[in-house]
Amino acid sequence: MVINLNKKDKRKNKLYGGIEGGGTKFVCGIGNENGDIIESVSIKTTTPEETVMQIQELYKIGWKKYDLKKIGIGCFGPLDLDKGSKTFGYITSTPKSGWQFFNLRESLNKALEKKIVLDTDVNAAALGEYFWGNGKGYNDFVYITIGTGIGAGIMSNGKLIHGLMHPEVGHILIPDEKILEGFDGVCPYHKRCLEGLASGPAIKTFWKENIENLPLTHPAWEAESSILAYGLVNIILTVSPKRIILGGGVMEQKNLFNKIRNKTASLLNGYIQKDEVSKSINDFIVPAGLGKNAGLLGAIALAIID
Amino acid sequence: MVINLNKKDKRKNKLYGGIEGGGTKFVCGIGNENGDIIESVSIKTTTPEETVMQIQELYKIGWKKYDLKKIGIGCFGPLDLDKGSKTFGYITSTPKSGWQFFNLRESLNKALEKKIVLDTDVNAAALGEYFWGNGKGYNDFVYITIGTGIGAGIMSNGKLIHGLMHPEVGHILIPDEKILEGFDGVCPYHKRCLEGLASGPAIKTFWKENIENLPLTHPAWEAESSILAYGLVNIILTVSPKRIILGGGVMEQKNLFNKIRNKTASLLNGYIQKDEVSKSINDFIVPAGLGKNAGLLGAIALAIID
Repeated sequence: MVINLNKKDKRKNKLYGGIEGGGTKFVCGIGNENGDIIESVSIKTTTPEETVMQIQELYKIGWKKYDLKKIGIGCFGPLDLDKGSKTFGYITSTPKSGWQFFNLRESLNKALEKKIVLDTDVNAAALGEYFWGNGKGYNDFVYITIGTGIGAGIMSNGKLIHGLMHPEVGHILIPDEKILEGFDGVCPYHKRCLEGLASGPAIKTFWKENIENLPLTHPAWEAESSILAYGLVNIILTVSPKRIILGGGVMEQKNLFNKIRNKTASLLNGYIQKDEVSKSINDFIVPAGLGKNAGLLGAIALAIID
Repeated sequence: MVINLNKKDKRKNKLYGGIEGGGTKFVCGIGNENGDIIESVSIKTTTPEETVMQIQELYKIGWKKYDLKKIGIGCFGPLDLDKGSKTFGYITSTPKSGWQFFNLRESLNKALEKKIVLDTDVNAAALGEYFWGNGKGYNDFVYITIGTGIGAGIMSNGKLIHGLMHPEVGHILIPDEKILEGFDGVCPYHKRCLEGLASGPAIKTFWKENIENLPLTHPAWEAESSILAYGLVNIILTVSPKRIILGGGVMEQKNLFNKIRNKTASLLNGYIQKDEVSKSINDFIVPAGLGKNAGLLGAIALAIID
């Protein structure tokens, strides 16, 4: 929601900056702990230097009046988030031209003179769901986005998993070679990984049709839900989540949910003897709770939780 | 190590109880924060009631002199570890006759009049590695045991992952139907899951030979390392560990390590651009650091960390 706060509310609510960094645009905003967005401006992604300069103007001139302590940024990756690393805070091996090994965290920190809290776009989105969406009240859940790519933010014991880097579940390898038989997928790194077979571009490549033009009864959705179910089963058996939230452009096709739920249960075959999976799977695999502001809210959440 | 402490050391070192609960024996012991084992006694696993009674006699009579505050128990499962659940602390759907839905935690708590800290045997073993073995200094690592079954303890941000239940990575589904072609595996729940294809019983069933009799050059080890590499790749891409520790009976075959390392790197295909994986894989995939007392030490670690 985008609202106007009166002066009294402003005093009550501490404000935080948030930036959703994407390949085509950087959405900058200001919000509070209630998940209200006070300001929001979209900047076109050009070169790293020019983009950072535009963000600088926005926050240091346009939004000078707000006394921000921290700015969260959820950005496309891969990112180096290891504090001990020489390239901590860098965008690393991205295919996005000009952005490879750009020190995003330090550039923004210098330009804005604020503490910058950097994480992946999908970790930020998971955190947004944890604060204000369908992850609320869950200390152990997985948020998966299925769109141009496939990625996950994983919350365990109330903390996002980073480890060596961050989860890269888009690249787990999928069994059952009969689904989309003979298709290696669109990933340049792996044959038949989740993203290679089930992302938006994968669907378009295999079926030679835009997703919007595929009717509900098209076999594409049977295949898509089967592949996603294989991915979910492996994720469930590895991190034991209490809930799985599915978002991203491909999941706009709402009839996917029941297909995925049924196929996931069928593949697990009664092994997980917990009511959440065996009896309440509609409440176990759920859509994302935040709408079009999810990315920006997630970035604001990064600043809040830091 | 099993040592005798003199009186001075006893005063310095707080003592904890530990029980390694297995299908054939319960190993009970007492140890300290240095990982020294002071006492250790093995009890045959019979009925739950009789086994608990023997443990009671041991701790309440034989070991009365030790002023134990807590006793950790790492037990075969599946276990219900969800504090909010009606069957919290139970062994649930185990195939072990007589032990299904036995309230292990409460039975031991009443019998011993001590706080009981229950977790899976593999979580306990992971914690033992974290305290005194090859997980020392790693807040994000995976410990996998490959033996009669396959299981994992996963540490993320310094805490073991539990979530809905606990990791069950033995049952993740494995791609590449050409390995052990035509073999569905030995798991009664899933076709071609990790445990079904790569556990000790799976090797014995497929190759019709005891593991000890399979020479280093036998094709069984090529197949075994390929299956394990598929499992590792999916685990790495999901939880992003800084180290993977492999233990259990099957990993006694030490020439498996280099095969697994090479195949894991090959399947990742340069996607994880971190030195730990690309340059130092010998230090990324490592054997367990604790020897034959690993299970008991892990149980003691559960009591210490609680």
